[in-house]
Amino acid sequence: MKSYYIGDGVGLDGLTLIDRPEPNAAPGRVVVRMRAFSLNFRDLEIVHGRFGPQTPRHMVPVSDGVGEVVAVGEGVTRFSVGDRVSGNFMQEWVDGAFDIGIHNSALGGPIDGVLAEYVAFPEHSLVKVPAYLTDEEAATLPCAAVTVWNALFAGGNARPGQTIVIQGTGGVSIFALQFAKLAGLKTIVTSSSDAKLARVVTMGADAVINYRTTPDWDHEVLTLTDGRGADIVLDVSGEDTIARSINAARSLGDVPIVGFLSGKSFTASLMPLLLKNVIVRGVSVGSRRMFEQMNEAISHHELHPVIDRVFEFEEARAAYEYLESGKHFGKVVIRA
Amino acid sequence: MKSYYIGDGVGLDGLTLIDRPEPNAAPGRVVVRMRAFSLNFRDLEIVHGRFGPQTPRHMVPVSDGVGEVVAVGEGVTRFSVGDRVSGNFMQEWVDGAFDIGIHNSALGGPIDGVLAEYVAFPEHSLVKVPAYLTDEEAATLPCAAVTVWNALFAGGNARPGQTIVIQGTGGVSIFALQFAKLAGLKTIVTSSSDAKLARVVTMGADAVINYRTTPDWDHEVLTLTDGRGADIVLDVSGEDTIARSINAARSLGDVPIVGFLSGKSFTASLMPLLLKNVIVRGVSVGSRRMFEQMNEAISHHELHPVIDRVFEFEEARAAYEYLESGKHFGKVVIRA
Amino acid sequence: MKSYYIGDGVGLDGLTLIDRPEPNAAPGRVVVRMRAFSLNFRDLEIVHGRFGPQTPRHMVPVSDGVGEVVAVGEGVTRFSVGDRVSGNFMQEWVDGAFDIGIHNSALGGPIDGVLAEYVAFPEHSLVKVPAYLTDEEAATLPCAAVTVWNALFAGGNARPGQTIVIQGTGGVSIFALQFAKLAGLKTIVTSSSDAKLARVVTMGADAVINYRTTPDWDHEVLTLTDGRGADIVLDVSGEDTIARSINAARSLGDVPIVGFLSGKSFTASLMPLLLKNVIVRGVSVGSRRMFEQMNEAISHHELHPVIDRVFEFEEARAAYEYLESGKHFGKVVIRA
Amino acid sequence: MKSYYIGDGVGLDGLTLIDRPEPNAAPGRVVVRMRAFSLNFRDLEIVHGRFGPQTPRHMVPVSDGVGEVVAVGEGVTRFSVGDRVSGNFMQEWVDGAFDIGIHNSALGGPIDGVLAEYVAFPEHSLVKVPAYLTDEEAATLPCAAVTVWNALFAGGNARPGQTIVIQGTGGVSIFALQFAKLAGLKTIVTSSSDAKLARVVTMGADAVINYRTTPDWDHEVLTLTDGRGADIVLDVSGEDTIARSINAARSLGDVPIVGFLSGKSFTASLMPLLLKNVIVRGVSVGSRRMFEQMNEAISHHELHPVIDRVFEFEEARAAYEYLESGKHFGKVVIRA
Repeated sequence: MKSYYIGDGVGLDGLTLIDRPEPNAAPGRVVVRMRAFSLNFRDLEIVHGRFGPQTPRHMVPVSDGVGEVVAVGEGVTRFSVGDRVSGNFMQEWVDGAFDIGIHNSALGGPIDGVLAEYVAFPEHSLVKVPAYLTDEEAATLPCAAVTVWNALFAGGNARPGQTIVIQGTGGVSIFALQFAKLAGLKTIVTSSSDAKLARVVTMGADAVINYRTTPDWDHEVLTLTDGRGADIVLDVSGEDTIARSINAARSLGDVPIVGFLSGKSFTASLMPLLLKNVIVRGVSVGSRRMFEQMNEAISHHELHPVIDRVFEFEEARAAYEYLESGKHFGKVVIRA
Repeated sequence: MKSYYIGDGVGLDGLTLIDRPEPNAAPGRVVVRMRAFSLNFRDLEIVHGRFGPQTPRHMVPVSDGVGEVVAVGEGVTRFSVGDRVSGNFMQEWVDGAFDIGIHNSALGGPIDGVLAEYVAFPEHSLVKVPAYLTDEEAATLPCAAVTVWNALFAGGNARPGQTIVIQGTGGVSIFALQFAKLAGLKTIVTSSSDAKLARVVTMGADAVINYRTTPDWDHEVLTLTDGRGADIVLDVSGEDTIARSINAARSLGDVPIVGFLSGKSFTASLMPLLLKNVIVRGVSVGSRRMFEQMNEAISHHELHPVIDRVFEFEEARAAYEYLESGKHFGKVVIRA
Repeated sequence: MKSYYIGDGVGLDGLTLIDRPEPNAAPGRVVVRMRAFSLNFRDLEIVHGRFGPQTPRHMVPVSDGVGEVVAVGEGVTRFSVGDRVSGNFMQEWVDGAFDIGIHNSALGGPIDGVLAEYVAFPEHSLVKVPAYLTDEEAATLPCAAVTVWNALFAGGNARPGQTIVIQGTGGVSIFALQFAKLAGLKTIVTSSSDAKLARVVTMGADAVINYRTTPDWDHEVLTLTDGRGADIVLDVSGEDTIARSINAARSLGDVPIVGFLSGKSFTASLMPLLLKNVIVRGVSVGSRRMFEQMNEAISHHELHPVIDRVFEFEEARAAYEYLESGKHFGKVVIRA
Repeated sequence: MKSYYIGDGVGLDGLTLIDRPEPNAAPGRVVVRMRAFSLNFRDLEIVHGRFGPQTPRHMVPVSDGVGEVVAVGEGVTRFSVGDRVSGNFMQEWVDGAFDIGIHNSALGGPIDGVLAEYVAFPEHSLVKVPAYLTDEEAATLPCAAVTVWNALFAGGNARPGQTIVIQGTGGVSIFALQFAKLAGLKTIVTSSSDAKLARVVTMGADAVINYRTTPDWDHEVLTLTDGRGADIVLDVSGEDTIARSINAARSLGDVPIVGFLSGKSFTASLMPLLLKNVIVRGVSVGSRRMFEQMNEAISHHELHPVIDRVFEFEEARAAYEYLESGKHFGKVVIRA
């Protein structure tokens, strides 16, 4: 079968399409014929070797994918041939509290990802895909959507009438906008592009801020909230934003950090965090139980993920490049 | 000024319209010209002396009302003449955790209620009324709506995609339907009237059960939830429903009890509660902070309370009788 | 090997000692040479067929035991030969929220228990036993101690300075006393025996009530708490106690129900639950994660479980009879 | 009466002893004859004008004090002449969630503090002092002890068996050690002084680290916790410690920041916070309800605060200087 592989090359040159043997349905395992995939910022960081000195290599890339079960191993009871499934991003995080060791089971680094024709998953790491979704739509969920679900409704406790600040219009951010609206929150979206901001307004964003023309976007959030600040500031960017995210937060405001688009260190004044009793916390995707709870919610509302562009399987490199360009709005998808 | 008063008479004959002196703006107090009121089941219980041996009497009835500030006492800073305000049901519950002593400050029993032309409130017991609401709409909020808010979002933790069972179509229940939809929950409404059920469907109820024709409504809830049960069963009825509410609940399901329409004792099998780890808990309206948070939420969504019928001030007795008939859908209002 | 077995006989006559083949170390399984066991009230109910129409039979009894690993199957990584281990009561509850289906994996009914010379457990269902405990002590933990841990520190949130009412002096109750003291709570213990009450006083109980001579023990709790009631009332008895447990609880008091020693139905007045916003909830033992967290805590404090009496393996019937007599204080243990 | 006052002078020269009129028992107010006071790091920052451009001046200093009620104003019901009381640090935070505006009611800046012979408090801002405490002991509670209570048991959720890292041996830190032991936690204390570390060991500290000889104290915490990190790292120092506090924390570890002894900005790597899902949050003393709950707990255990040294009223300047020297262990007290 065909599979992408990250070998020795530097950057996207390291991404190669190779032939590998099809996986078998070993005991407890489920073989899936992949149908669609989606890319995350993390996939870019890994292929470019920017995940630190221990960036994983020599493996199949990409965490997010959906496919159809074609074989089940001995002892498998939760799935049958024909089921449409996705692997949970953290393969060993079934339920319960997060633990650092869970990162060792992240698809697409350090363990083999899903950008291949066939993938064998341990049964306990899979979830069923809601029937109303296309393959392309379903492929967008495992990393970005589950991260937002965890940040808002598992680790967090978002409530109708609260205000959330959403940074940017990438995959995570657009899910945040959709989920926040589902739960009755007020939404403030930031972006450097007026065109993208116009688009989030059509999706129901209650207020928008162009952080290029309004670099003090934290002050603007305070203005938009009558000086109180936002109940939740979902930080996807890290280095460049954390200090302002704290400034933009309300007393006891929640600042879940889910990404590091702009860098991996940060400097902040302690005083706003201390004086406002702000909560800054890291969020790492989520458990299979969170994925399932999210699926119950989006199924009830028939929420459709926003896909920017779909690439063919052979065009994976172009998909990576498109994501890297930052032009996307929502998710970048690859079709099997 | 004119004021209703519960005197020595039994039942509605105890409800009389009398003349009382207008209240003064003592230090820390706010005098309000009342504009509209709403009735709750509790008001009926009190006027009929069914609140137990210590049913409060010799006082102004009714907890819920809205009016305009006409005078403020020395030291008042949160309100000015002309503001539209409501008294919080529990006058002394400003913020923080519930405490039994708070009942001593409940409007309309044991302390004087609001069914009068003028009422003087302590400043800390008032909230501002959202501007988009009519007086009649705003008058429906203090007891029924705040109770639901507390049950779902303060004491409780309702989340998109969860299923809630809502009993009946009275004031509390219709707010529960509206708030649950606001927060993205699935809703199952029970009633003895197909006409009322048809009406909640137009409001967005996802499923309905006529508990007269389907007395085993708990089994029907299990069927509607693929055998799992509902995440939340909002119990407004007490004696007749608690056992079935527990049966209808999911593992770790939440059964907030907010009323006792059918009686004040209950018998239940321990086993479903124990085996499913169900949570049964009492909920007593809410704090001023909860009222304010609810106002933020409903303002954002411009949610309009459902008013069944509006009576004139002189028709208060007819309003009580109408509520007692059980014909209402949503709230029964009195205009000042 | 020798194993106890519940066959067709009624009551303790159904408990027989038979010969069965020793279990193999199948893939993912861990074979344990059992060393000690403890009995719970539930074991009595099961052997007597009092667990309802579906009382499990035709199986190895008893949920609680400790032993030494003698063989590990393919793929087992968490344990090695020589480790001392216990099976978690709910074999399939590793972490996360309770779900009703978890009962299907309860040791000693419906699935085979541990009262045998050798038992093969799935790897994920085992915990390591703290080194400072004897086998007999360690054997007391899986059901009674984990239940209390869950009730107080996982589902519950016990805090120093809170008051807890503990009913009786059986296994669960004595752990509750020990854990409550560990966490800095005030403890009120009830019993029908002055001798047992004298003994809990030596263990540090802050107040005691003989519920035979003071049947209105709920009133006594109110007196002991300056009229406020207890923050937590751990209900182990069910039918006979729930109404009084609610009466004895403080505003927003927590009434975790963990047993049904006195019966499986209950009748209560709704009003104290409603007026005090009491929380009544069922608790079913706990997850492996809770077991592990408890082990961290008891190891730090070198807490020693209280064992009333130790029976030899051949005396299992006598052990059951002794438990049934209600004479015990703490746990009844069987040695392998 | 005599009162200290911070006037125009720079630093401790601004601290003067003046004569002021005795306060009256206005309606709702309680006049207290002060008996003892304690100093906090914050008092030093204020007198030195290091609280930022808006450092409060022209007021009575010091937040913490205890005294005896000598007069009560009209309407006061919770206190009588002769009661021993303390003012809550945040005079307007009675109960409920923190809000930034609460800082405006902090004693000793911006509003007048308590370092005077008589102080008039609003009734709602006072708590009764546990009878078992001396005046000097009671005077240590309002800021340092309530802060720790909030961090561990109100905003936080400390549990037996968890590990807490406590930085230093000042007032906050010694309360943290005492409260952590009360609640059954394991304690690791850091200090630059072996003598002080020896002393905390006698108080029950489970492990100690001299951060002067072991500057990588975060690594040492990991070693002491088998690589897992501490469940709670109570950060009192801010600038110099936050990055290491995050490093020393366990997955989902709680890092409450309660002080800024070393500075008001910080730089940290985002990755450990993100990868471990650490929670960093500011904590600002606490509500009157928290103070009362803490009093229930310490009264039950008859916990005695650790006082380093007691100065006479006339020696206030020397007390400030002693605190500034950093030689203290526990609290620095002034007698009225």
